Amino acid sequence: MENFEFRNPTKIIFGRDGEDKVGAETAAYSRKILLHFGGGSIKQSGLYDRVTASLRAANVEWIELGGVKPNPRLSLVHEGVRLCKEKGLGLILAVGGGSVIDSAKAIAMGAVIDGDVWDFYLGKGQPTAALPVGTVLTIPAAGSEASTGTVITKEEGWLKRAVNSDLIYPRFSVLNPELAFTLPPFQIACGAMDITAHLMERYFTNVKNVAFTDRLLEATMKTIIAQAPKLIRNPKDYDAWAEFMWAGTIAHNNLLNTGRIGDWASHDIEHEISGIYDVAHGAGLAVVFPAWMKHVYKQDVERFVQWAVRVWNVELDVFNPQAVVLKGIARMERFFTSLGIGTTLDSLGIKDDRIDEMAEKCTDGDTRTVGNFVKLDRKAVAAILRLAR
Amino acid sequence: MENFEFRNPTKIIFGRDGEDKVGAETAAYSRKILLHFGGGSIKQSGLYDRVTASLRAANVEWIELGGVKPNPRLSLVHEGVRLCKEKGLGLILAVGGGSVIDSAKAIAMGAVIDGDVWDFYLGKGQPTAALPVGTVLTIPAAGSEASTGTVITKEEGWLKRAVNSDLIYPRFSVLNPELAFTLPPFQIACGAMDITAHLMERYFTNVKNVAFTDRLLEATMKTIIAQAPKLIRNPKDYDAWAEFMWAGTIAHNNLLNTGRIGDWASHDIEHEISGIYDVAHGAGLAVVFPAWMKHVYKQDVERFVQWAVRVWNVELDVFNPQAVVLKGIARMERFFTSLGIGTTLDSLGIKDDRIDEMAEKCTDGDTRTVGNFVKLDRKAVAAILRLAR
Repeated sequence: MENFEFRNPTKIIFGRDGEDKVGAETAAYSRKILLHFGGGSIKQSGLYDRVTASLRAANVEWIELGGVKPNPRLSLVHEGVRLCKEKGLGLILAVGGGSVIDSAKAIAMGAVIDGDVWDFYLGKGQPTAALPVGTVLTIPAAGSEASTGTVITKEEGWLKRAVNSDLIYPRFSVLNPELAFTLPPFQIACGAMDITAHLMERYFTNVKNVAFTDRLLEATMKTIIAQAPKLIRNPKDYDAWAEFMWAGTIAHNNLLNTGRIGDWASHDIEHEISGIYDVAHGAGLAVVFPAWMKHVYKQDVERFVQWAVRVWNVELDVFNPQAVVLKGIARMERFFTSLGIGTTLDSLGIKDDRIDEMAEKCTDGDTRTVGNFVKLDRKAVAAILRLAR
Repeated sequence: MENFEFRNPTKIIFGRDGEDKVGAETAAYSRKILLHFGGGSIKQSGLYDRVTASLRAANVEWIELGGVKPNPRLSLVHEGVRLCKEKGLGLILAVGGGSVIDSAKAIAMGAVIDGDVWDFYLGKGQPTAALPVGTVLTIPAAGSEASTGTVITKEEGWLKRAVNSDLIYPRFSVLNPELAFTLPPFQIACGAMDITAHLMERYFTNVKNVAFTDRLLEATMKTIIAQAPKLIRNPKDYDAWAEFMWAGTIAHNNLLNTGRIGDWASHDIEHEISGIYDVAHGAGLAVVFPAWMKHVYKQDVERFVQWAVRVWNVELDVFNPQAVVLKGIARMERFFTSLGIGTTLDSLGIKDDRIDEMAEKCTDGDTRTVGNFVKLDRKAVAAILRLAR
């Protein structure tokens, strides 16, 4: 196990009617805030009315900034930064899914500096301060509600890049499983893949003696596998959403990588796909991950055997470990297919004519590798994308 | 799943040489502190020298208060409170195991009030403030290093009582597995039992739809079962200690009871045993828990079957679920016996002549019940203690 420091300060408010507490939670930080959201769905569902009623009751004023899109855009972040500076806003309240929260985190970092927040995404410097962020989660998937991460896309060149900082852990996050009842099946499936991917990125590590967090990761994967099909059948199943939503948060709140070094190549590769083709992040991951596994599993066959046996209930065949691994990967592919998302580029309608371009961008023109479990250069990334066709 | 709020603010500093950071962590809160510890073991091991060197380097002054005993005493807490008030100390640094940390938490609550901190332990009022507490953990067992709990014994009448408050989450805890290398086998076994008990108190709940936290609890129990025997064989096994220590913290930091209602009858009953006989808490729990299980398992046979199958690898026999449960309990008893601790009152040298007295005290003269999974009155507590003979 590696040495580590861990402290997750996000206050989780979990259960029915949690959004009624958002005014009081917000007022502890600021009485003049940016209310950040996506399209009109929170107005149709009545969530907007409940959140603003709670803010009003706590004497919190707000300026609105809607319009966050999946793969959230830098131009809207700049707009939010401008509003925060001009109006002297003291907190960003994100009502929505991972895209809204990631956009809010970017605004939070940008509002307290003179320069362009995009520099952080390019690795030029680290943030030293940020406005507080609060969230009301509507899409369990990205885990951004209790994480240090934010991913933003710059429209010019369709560059998709991430920042991680302890400063952008949300101060509070309202997790009400009922708020996910209106999600369409495709988004549920993408969320299941995104959460599973967060777990697998952490699971496949070269660090030895991580048996405890191995088991916690397996427990969380098994939860997603058990609950996701129930949600596809009945998206109003509160109990299944409760398990799924809490598992989605724990999957990405940094607890499950304590003492480990995660991989993250699949995320980096997927960012190139969704950066160019604007597909859902989860759908992209369902394509990349199986191909990545087939490319790298020989790095540590035992670890992949443990995963196949414990997570996918493949019967152990000690004489044919590679067959066990491949059965595990096949079960995962069948599982996500059964949820309604494809596991090939073709299923996303993506041809193979830009694979080299994606591999080139992913490795910054072959100047860096991606991943830790196996370090992948441009050629390896291209090989994985070809496997994913 | 029940609604819940969860936020654990304790900063964990995990790994080798963590105690060298204690000065800087402390200085962020106060430069004049109480250094609280037990007997001479931290001086013999050199830990005292390393901690005080780190404090000195950070310009932190300290007043010392050693002498904390297992089942920490109220009289020493009063002494600590007096020192904090007289000298204007701003943080209590606990260097030791759960007893030292529990004592530090009591001092932290007592130092900011005019009255007697024992009132909180009697349920008269709730703390509204506390001095910050930091810890350097030497005994993985009680989980106090990242918990809201403190248990103190009042010598007069040997009353052992608990307080839980978010205010006494330690601000930081140094978890260096090497600091546990000197523990004798009996204490390792008691720690394993204490941690397992924290998990089982949470596991046996009547709350439905807690499948995710069920799995996390099972994962943590399996970790203790896997690592404890390695430590008995070789108490200098860093890797096994690392898994065991981190599992012990997670077992009791309130994450694993999110959305659940724990039982805690076995802890309450054990407090009567160790209150009177001054046995180690873990040793008492190894006696109480199997008897409690045999008394209550019919409340939810399915839950006990799940536990026996998943945690103790009992083969599922769907036609004889009770037999599966009893096999699970027997395996647990054999496991703790194999670690070197008994599972009967007799093995602790305790006769059955004060069972009724303990049952009477445990239920405050039959005016309250203990436990939630099954609510136990005086007669039920006595029956469990008789089963434990």
